[in-house]
Amino acid sequence: MTMDHFMDRLAGAVRRCGNPVLVGLDPRRAQLPEGLLAAGTDDCDSWAAAYATFCRGVIDVVAPLVPAVKPQAAFFEELGPAGMEALADVIGYASGKGLIVILDGKRNDIGSTATAYANGLLGPGGQSPWAADALTVSPYLGHDSLVPFVDVAQRRGAGVFVLVKTSNPGGGQFQDLVADGRPVFRHVADYVEGLAQPSAGRCGYGIVGAVVGATYPQQLAELRAAMPHAWLLIPGFGSQGGRAADVAAGFDAAGLGAIVNNSRNIIFAHARPEYRERFGAPRWQDAVDAATREMIDQLRSATPAGKLAGGGGE
Amino acid sequence: MTMDHFMDRLAGAVRRCGNPVLVGLDPRRAQLPEGLLAAGTDDCDSWAAAYATFCRGVIDVVAPLVPAVKPQAAFFEELGPAGMEALADVIGYASGKGLIVILDGKRNDIGSTATAYANGLLGPGGQSPWAADALTVSPYLGHDSLVPFVDVAQRRGAGVFVLVKTSNPGGGQFQDLVADGRPVFRHVADYVEGLAQPSAGRCGYGIVGAVVGATYPQQLAELRAAMPHAWLLIPGFGSQGGRAADVAAGFDAAGLGAIVNNSRNIIFAHARPEYRERFGAPRWQDAVDAATREMIDQLRSATPAGKLAGGGGE
Repeated sequence: MTMDHFMDRLAGAVRRCGNPVLVGLDPRRAQLPEGLLAAGTDDCDSWAAAYATFCRGVIDVVAPLVPAVKPQAAFFEELGPAGMEALADVIGYASGKGLIVILDGKRNDIGSTATAYANGLLGPGGQSPWAADALTVSPYLGHDSLVPFVDVAQRRGAGVFVLVKTSNPGGGQFQDLVADGRPVFRHVADYVEGLAQPSAGRCGYGIVGAVVGATYPQQLAELRAAMPHAWLLIPGFGSQGGRAADVAAGFDAAGLGAIVNNSRNIIFAHARPEYRERFGAPRWQDAVDAATREMIDQLRSATPAGKLAGGGGE
Repeated sequence: MTMDHFMDRLAGAVRRCGNPVLVGLDPRRAQLPEGLLAAGTDDCDSWAAAYATFCRGVIDVVAPLVPAVKPQAAFFEELGPAGMEALADVIGYASGKGLIVILDGKRNDIGSTATAYANGLLGPGGQSPWAADALTVSPYLGHDSLVPFVDVAQRRGAGVFVLVKTSNPGGGQFQDLVADGRPVFRHVADYVEGLAQPSAGRCGYGIVGAVVGATYPQQLAELRAAMPHAWLLIPGFGSQGGRAADVAAGFDAAGLGAIVNNSRNIIFAHARPEYRERFGAPRWQDAVDAATREMIDQLRSATPAGKLAGGGGE
């Protein structure tokens, strides 16, 4: 990665690829294509090696097609230090292929402890052991838990995505509580906009973005308006029920300002009924390719992102 | 660790030691005693080795004195995979010395992703690469982000501490917003009590506890009453300004129900002015010993924890 403004880099990659697809790298033991685990092994080291092989295989397919990938730290952390080595390998491999890497770690702590997480996870190789381009963070601890991540990101040409309104069934339990006439997530959104605005780059967006679920289209429209300088990371597309029309409101008029994540339906596409018939297990990478192109087409035809590819769907 | 109920184990350790001191293992490069880093080295591997040596040295001193330690994941994660190896080493060493290990990771995610974090971090060695007895978690994502941690903890004889009201200056920004007549942290507290009550052990507390800062004594009293089945983990003592009298309200009448964390003022006691004169840098472990005993005495004389040691201060 270079020291350019993170969101300018992301916007450039989205324009270059002509789509805003973020492929989630969520390796799960039970769903890995057959044959990736070395025969006769079942320890953390072997699974970590299988995860790295699998993710490299996904990256090989999607690198020419999409702007960014999002490794999920939890699945690597589940495997212990060997898994965290594999995570570093996967991040480095994706960066080497020109992909922007948004690490989904949902880290959070305060002051110098937050700085330690940011130092470890964000920034160029050589400065950071894991060297992700951006990191997701959780806001419950307040401003002194967010500013340290932003400060490190600023110094290192990296980005931060703050959880604002999440797509899971329990997301509303605390996020939707109404205080002073606005739900908690709107309070968080207003603070995120305040962090994003001062760091706006040429693309109009700051280095601080927001995670906003695709399962709440109305709130997505509200939050797009409330955070004009915050790029949105939208999870919940595909397996969590979000459709292309649901995410349309996340984009600006130029088709920028949002990146849409899909994990399982792309990386484990070989197990989807409609692909299982077209591609046998050994052709799992062909299923990844088909599922990625399908999502790109869906977003181009049903969202402002269609403008990125020369107007309209293809 | 055994498969006994986590809070029963914690209560037993507190009773055995006669105090509720939780020593925070927050290794920081700039504050490490001189001589711990191998001469001529300054890479992540060398720092990770120095952190392990330092934490083992702290553990050697505090294991006969206190019930539990709390390694801070961020400082190990800052050093990359080598740091995460050192974290596993430190947790294993502390467990081997009979200490209960509460990993401060503030992890959070949803569903099977949360389960992956819990699988990696919680439970007995052999089942878990890091094998901590308990983990701190963040509640912003709601119930389906908390239940998976509780489920894994239940199966593995481990515990979970949910962030409820934190001790940092920004803690109030979202936690104190008032919805339906109660601050957000009270909504979280009520949910935590609901998780804790059904899993109450012989000690009266469930396997789910709550992180409640020492810098808000009034709220500590309120939250002790609101969560009668939730053991409190109280940070903010010492360097963050909390005093023994401030944490008294966190305990039940028997002197149980709270554990009080101190990190910097114990592990870096050699740098405190009053200790720097008594102990030179090579005697940093003597400073740790003196600072630990000082905190034990403070809590015994000013809180119900005095009853654990046969009544009153000593």
